Amino acid sequence: MNAEIIVVGSELLTPHRMDTNSLYLTEQLNLLGVEVVFKSIVGDNLPRLVAAAEHALFRSEIVIFSGGLGPTEDDLTREAVAEALGVGLRRDPEILRSLEERFAARGWKMAANNAKQADVLEGATVLANPNGTAPGQWISGEFEGREHIIVMLPGPPHELKALFETEVRERLRAKVPPAFLATRTLKIAMLGESAVDARVAPIYTRYKDVETTILAGAGEIELHFKSRAANQEAAQQRVDEVADLVEDELDDAVYSRDGQSLEQIVGYWLQMRGATVAVAESCTGGLLAERITSVSGSSRYFVGGAVVYSNALKTEFAGVPAEMIERHGAVSREVAAALAEGIRYRCESTLGVGITGVAGPGGGTPEKPVGLVFHAVASDRGTEVAQRNFPGDRKRIRRFASTMALDMLRKKLM
Amino acid sequence: MNAEIIVVGSELLTPHRMDTNSLYLTEQLNLLGVEVVFKSIVGDNLPRLVAAAEHALFRSEIVIFSGGLGPTEDDLTREAVAEALGVGLRRDPEILRSLEERFAARGWKMAANNAKQADVLEGATVLANPNGTAPGQWISGEFEGREHIIVMLPGPPHELKALFETEVRERLRAKVPPAFLATRTLKIAMLGESAVDARVAPIYTRYKDVETTILAGAGEIELHFKSRAANQEAAQQRVDEVADLVEDELDDAVYSRDGQSLEQIVGYWLQMRGATVAVAESCTGGLLAERITSVSGSSRYFVGGAVVYSNALKTEFAGVPAEMIERHGAVSREVAAALAEGIRYRCESTLGVGITGVAGPGGGTPEKPVGLVFHAVASDRGTEVAQRNFPGDRKRIRRFASTMALDMLRKKLM
Repeated sequence: MNAEIIVVGSELLTPHRMDTNSLYLTEQLNLLGVEVVFKSIVGDNLPRLVAAAEHALFRSEIVIFSGGLGPTEDDLTREAVAEALGVGLRRDPEILRSLEERFAARGWKMAANNAKQADVLEGATVLANPNGTAPGQWISGEFEGREHIIVMLPGPPHELKALFETEVRERLRAKVPPAFLATRTLKIAMLGESAVDARVAPIYTRYKDVETTILAGAGEIELHFKSRAANQEAAQQRVDEVADLVEDELDDAVYSRDGQSLEQIVGYWLQMRGATVAVAESCTGGLLAERITSVSGSSRYFVGGAVVYSNALKTEFAGVPAEMIERHGAVSREVAAALAEGIRYRCESTLGVGITGVAGPGGGTPEKPVGLVFHAVASDRGTEVAQRNFPGDRKRIRRFASTMALDMLRKKLM
Repeated sequence: MNAEIIVVGSELLTPHRMDTNSLYLTEQLNLLGVEVVFKSIVGDNLPRLVAAAEHALFRSEIVIFSGGLGPTEDDLTREAVAEALGVGLRRDPEILRSLEERFAARGWKMAANNAKQADVLEGATVLANPNGTAPGQWISGEFEGREHIIVMLPGPPHELKALFETEVRERLRAKVPPAFLATRTLKIAMLGESAVDARVAPIYTRYKDVETTILAGAGEIELHFKSRAANQEAAQQRVDEVADLVEDELDDAVYSRDGQSLEQIVGYWLQMRGATVAVAESCTGGLLAERITSVSGSSRYFVGGAVVYSNALKTEFAGVPAEMIERHGAVSREVAAALAEGIRYRCESTLGVGITGVAGPGGGTPEKPVGLVFHAVASDRGTEVAQRNFPGDRKRIRRFASTMALDMLRKKLM
């Protein structure tokens, strides 16, 4: 069965706002074996909404609406779907009562416009919304000679997700043919997209029944595998087979096989080894510390660090000798190593990380161009330094450099 | 005139990828006075593409396609639009020659499938693409009794943007009624969305000819004003008038009136005052330093800082007395002030910032719950401390806290 998603709201037709609900809904539908074949974004305009609903009902068996269920006169999804289906709306006294109670519980009197949230399409099932005032609605039945499922969900993402999980997923599963769909994701650090593809395309192209998607960021690549088969075991076997072969090919460049982030993996290994880490960053300006501490519980292995933007602070906080900076320059292999060793010593951590480079856009020279970064990891077995020339703008270079440092930490701990 | 955007590509119907071209196109069209009334995302499927093109031609005067112009058999936009319009395709010998030259220049032989990129719709103008192999196309003329403009652009964002700027914008401007559209943006820190709206709605609702949009993030709010009038001066006057009244109402909570970020504004004021800043962060884990240094040129006013996750480092790097931490706890007004004062002293900066709090999800207690954060700014005139209880998850609390600290800095410098 095919689905389409209609996202309702004039604010989503401005340059400022982007629909993200449809990504969540697509993921959920795919897991049920349902493909999404159309997405539309329509403003709060009754004739346009009715036309969009009619086209969708003509083309697709499952139509999911996101948004337009609130109390204002711009919330028109209920009216539009009723008109497209040729059914009436009735005001549900039970919903009305629960709306009034909701307001009364807060000591407010309900404004009259809220009552329209109690309007239910003939034949629809009401989907209770624990996180907001607007309930969802579900209608299934024959329309123009074909079986259809129409679902209306509120637009706020946390309301939509909670409603999908509690009220929609199992209802859909009962209606769609059983789908045996398996997925696997591999995450790869510090290899280029074309380099990865050149190495793994000979593998995944042999698996015609496995769909492979490559997504690339600054220094990180995700490989998504998806397969459908006659039963769950067969589908799982196919994605596992291709993922295992790809992992063998890419070896330790693969850092995650179950969706975890590089920050989480580094935290996992630090805890496994009973190790702690401290960082001294120059060009990344705190980004590495920020990424490490974005993981909850990171205080168990992250001691702290220093953002040593000025040369004086490289000496003050990480003990880098001023004459070393004088001789080799702040952006140098020697200073990176000294930052890593110095911060490790000062913070009494198992590992120390140092980063120094030119994030740009200014500050580059012919010898030390924008994008040049030195990364160092110090341990009791010595200090490793890696030099890279990253492409892109300031933001991308900083992201690359912090990913490189995290990946060096990971490899040191593995 | 109304426009709609059709984004072509099966990868944009997966959970992994999101169309962003339509935001750029919407912004550009709005500036020409054209509203976008529909967006659709369609896969690489000829019947579905033809249907989408037909619906669009029926509904809207301007239809812009993004993607589906490449050389593979999945690239079907040309064929679909030709079928929807009922016109033929001819292979253009000039494009073919330039494709062959492009490949020859790299020492490659052109694969046969590339030739389809030379297929041009009858009556179409070819839009040369300096950044890629697939040219764009422009057709204007009567269709079903109404004047239409159809534009086909390649999907890669840098190709689409370059083509729009060089080949499409002026062609569109010549066709659409002259639009005199003015916009203004105000950015506001550390006020709630509903609090802002309650104060400014009485102002902006009086301006029926000014469209107001409120966007809210963690601790930051943007107010966008847009107006259209008989001439540019009149339109500008209307948005300026409402923006000025709103700014008077919100007073110094408005930090930017020309699109600059809070980080940029803080950098601007630091430079204006010839001041420098250093930071000592606990729960924000480097985020504040990262945000300050995301601005290029920030080394002129940002000295550096310390991420003092452990209590020992609060003493080591910022000189917070161990007995103070013992007595008041690491998350306290006293420690925040000592962090700000200590880091200012150690870094010899004009201003020092200290942040300590509970980012969660763990670590909260009844007295010091998740979301409790103390922020301090130290200067030669003393130390100011602010306490807040932020809602949301770890990421949101850290974002709030760093925004609060930036806003305290801004107010101190103004």
